[in-house]
Amino acid sequence: MSAPDERPATVTLAAYLGTRLRQLGVEHLFGVPGDFNLDLLDGLAVDGPAWVGSPNELGAGYAADAYARSRGLGVVVTTYGVGELSVLNALAGAAAEDVPLVQVVGAPRRAAVETGALIHHTLADGDFGHFSRAAAEVAVAAETVTAERATEQVDAVLLAAVTHRKPGYLAVPQDLALAPVDAAPLARPLVAHSDADALAAFEARLTELLATAQRPVLVVGQLVPRFGASDDLAKLAERHGVAVVTQLSARGVLDPGHPAFAGDHAGAMLTNGTAELVEAADVVVHVGTALTAELTGFGSHRRPDAGTPFLAAAEAGFGATPVGRVLFRDALAALDRALDARTGPRFERSAAVPASVVELAGPLTQAQLWSVLAGVLPTGTALLADTGTAYYGALGIPLPADTVFSGQPIWSSIGYALPAVLGQGLAEPGRRPVLVIGDGAAQMTVQELSTIAAAGLAPVVL
Amino acid sequence: MSAPDERPATVTLAAYLGTRLRQLGVEHLFGVPGDFNLDLLDGLAVDGPAWVGSPNELGAGYAADAYARSRGLGVVVTTYGVGELSVLNALAGAAAEDVPLVQVVGAPRRAAVETGALIHHTLADGDFGHFSRAAAEVAVAAETVTAERATEQVDAVLLAAVTHRKPGYLAVPQDLALAPVDAAPLARPLVAHSDADALAAFEARLTELLATAQRPVLVVGQLVPRFGASDDLAKLAERHGVAVVTQLSARGVLDPGHPAFAGDHAGAMLTNGTAELVEAADVVVHVGTALTAELTGFGSHRRPDAGTPFLAAAEAGFGATPVGRVLFRDALAALDRALDARTGPRFERSAAVPASVVELAGPLTQAQLWSVLAGVLPTGTALLADTGTAYYGALGIPLPADTVFSGQPIWSSIGYALPAVLGQGLAEPGRRPVLVIGDGAAQMTVQELSTIAAAGLAPVVL
Repeated sequence: MSAPDERPATVTLAAYLGTRLRQLGVEHLFGVPGDFNLDLLDGLAVDGPAWVGSPNELGAGYAADAYARSRGLGVVVTTYGVGELSVLNALAGAAAEDVPLVQVVGAPRRAAVETGALIHHTLADGDFGHFSRAAAEVAVAAETVTAERATEQVDAVLLAAVTHRKPGYLAVPQDLALAPVDAAPLARPLVAHSDADALAAFEARLTELLATAQRPVLVVGQLVPRFGASDDLAKLAERHGVAVVTQLSARGVLDPGHPAFAGDHAGAMLTNGTAELVEAADVVVHVGTALTAELTGFGSHRRPDAGTPFLAAAEAGFGATPVGRVLFRDALAALDRALDARTGPRFERSAAVPASVVELAGPLTQAQLWSVLAGVLPTGTALLADTGTAYYGALGIPLPADTVFSGQPIWSSIGYALPAVLGQGLAEPGRRPVLVIGDGAAQMTVQELSTIAAAGLAPVVL
Repeated sequence: MSAPDERPATVTLAAYLGTRLRQLGVEHLFGVPGDFNLDLLDGLAVDGPAWVGSPNELGAGYAADAYARSRGLGVVVTTYGVGELSVLNALAGAAAEDVPLVQVVGAPRRAAVETGALIHHTLADGDFGHFSRAAAEVAVAAETVTAERATEQVDAVLLAAVTHRKPGYLAVPQDLALAPVDAAPLARPLVAHSDADALAAFEARLTELLATAQRPVLVVGQLVPRFGASDDLAKLAERHGVAVVTQLSARGVLDPGHPAFAGDHAGAMLTNGTAELVEAADVVVHVGTALTAELTGFGSHRRPDAGTPFLAAAEAGFGATPVGRVLFRDALAALDRALDARTGPRFERSAAVPASVVELAGPLTQAQLWSVLAGVLPTGTALLADTGTAYYGALGIPLPADTVFSGQPIWSSIGYALPAVLGQGLAEPGRRPVLVIGDGAAQMTVQELSTIAAAGLAPVVL
């Protein structure tokens, strides 16, 4: 933490936002300039995250989504109305997929709003609230910044987004972007806390439940990678010898060679033995899962009962009943401690994940494509698979160790994965992106290839 | 009107919609397929308007907007969530620009909605109303079709859109798209009516006001071209010898050689004498105007007073007070009759609109570009100018006779005009589109060039 005397007493609101974002790991901003956000962008350019301009807003939104998945927060900056509405698809996708994507909108001056001025980028009806209300349909927190509460509102939206792993929305009036605000809050990091009693209650009941469990299984969902907890989970599972199955939304969280990894799980949709393993378990723990139709093999999974423990982003509990505010990482630590007391046997995996091989002869087929891809994919890549054939095909190949696998199994908006290459590539420069996408999907957002090239990334595009 | 025995007693809901659209002049549908709208598209393909598939939804929305400007109604068909949200920018633009653009969304089955199923293309929170509520922020009418009221809802949305020249939103659950509905309403055309008393009151007061007017001026706005009333207005102005100035949003409504056309008008922003003409008028009639900042020369126009007559889409009145429900075309006919009784002198235009000429020497400049364009633009074209330099540059050139001039002076979303070429070209095949657009704006929606080529259009792109 900086000493108070190192920081000026006031900074511009834009600088405040930029500093907060850097504190939270954001080193790149995605977006498109527009007349209402120019002051904001000027202010953010001073010591703020680097600017990555995109040809259109939807591409920028998808890129920021992918960045958020890797960095724990992603930001897309647009102008009012014409800019922000084109991001709403990405913002909604972030809601479905548990991604902390924050949209920052440069909004009209307060005087225009207060007088109901009929200006461009509005519906010319004097109502400036249409678009923020639309965003609030999908955002966990949505604020239009006021002079009186500016820093509090910025902090509230950012903290809600990172705590809930959900999208946030922050509109900054043009005439407030460079206005001075109190810099003092910047000395205190933005951190959320669990309720201590709720956490203790969760841990106590979980410990009791697991103490004599003979065949516990952890069903791991998308919140584990979203919270950057994949390594922690891998260590936990290995240390305690507890079986792990991964939802398709958490594919790649455990390396295929991990001794406790039993495979991908989607109810009866996958025939790799995980359905039987989960059915036979005496305790099933849902670690950041989402029980959507596609992820549960269209409801063919073992449904949680009233006693099934779950760990969600900002609450944990049993069955459908949260015990209170228990943050995901605190709940994961509680699970780790609870497993310490377990006396049952360690999980022994029966066999390695089989790799399929197809002979290369005759015309190129889908099966051959996936087989070849599986054969050449090195460790340490980011495999981005767009919705549709690309995604479901890529689900079928075994992943090398240390692979980030990403797509949109819930929101399923075609065209997502191409701009996601930009965000993923900038978020983790050491990890080469590999994109598989159909030609129809690629047409949705193809202009983002120019930004990918401008950023100097070298993805493999199939 | 068809005899009842010519039509089956029931048709599918999709066929009902398709028939209604064709009755209203819609011969092309724009959009993108998706799993929730496939049944709907199958049903619309039977005797419905022709399908024009686009690479992405925003482009399809803009194309349908341009189509609506020419045909009086345009339709974009998308899937739920991932599809519809990408059109919201276009839908909002239609609200700002008074365009009857109807978005038809293929929505999930009713059973999924009723049980709050966690399915793809949703936020996985069981709430299926997020996106229709977002659309309702900008649409004049928004309905999610029910089995009980399906045809009534279809008719209500279409009628509201064409009556108000505003966007509409219609969500059709997948399992209702091919369900049978009563075909009987199709025998009655969809028509709105003025309130007879309100119309009579408007005409009486207008007649009295104009009877002795010596220097009346009609300020013409975007509703005149939106209602396809440009020719009627031209005849009215010539017959009565009443001066007409056009807002920039109604540019091209009158040919430059029209004897009553005094020029484009935007308060003191334009120095062509129209500001003085309007200031000197004894009666100013606002014919479908929008008094936004940009269109009024940033408020430098002569503001309407309490007695200033206005004609809006579905109401007419004086000052800020409507007399009641008076539809635009009825109000225009009332204006025509009111001018019959006028005894004042005919307007005599002092000079023709001057054409500027720039010598072609030295490096290519903006001024030269516009000069050359002005010199080569034939009559009968559609000049589509994208927001920014292209639009404001194109405002400066004199238009040949019979030119459609189109852009987004209010909503001002860059990238609009490129897909607009598709919609305009299909709406009026005999009118060659000429597009002027900056490279940044073109990148927003560049993929629509493929649809333009596939449609066999031959636009000129600058």
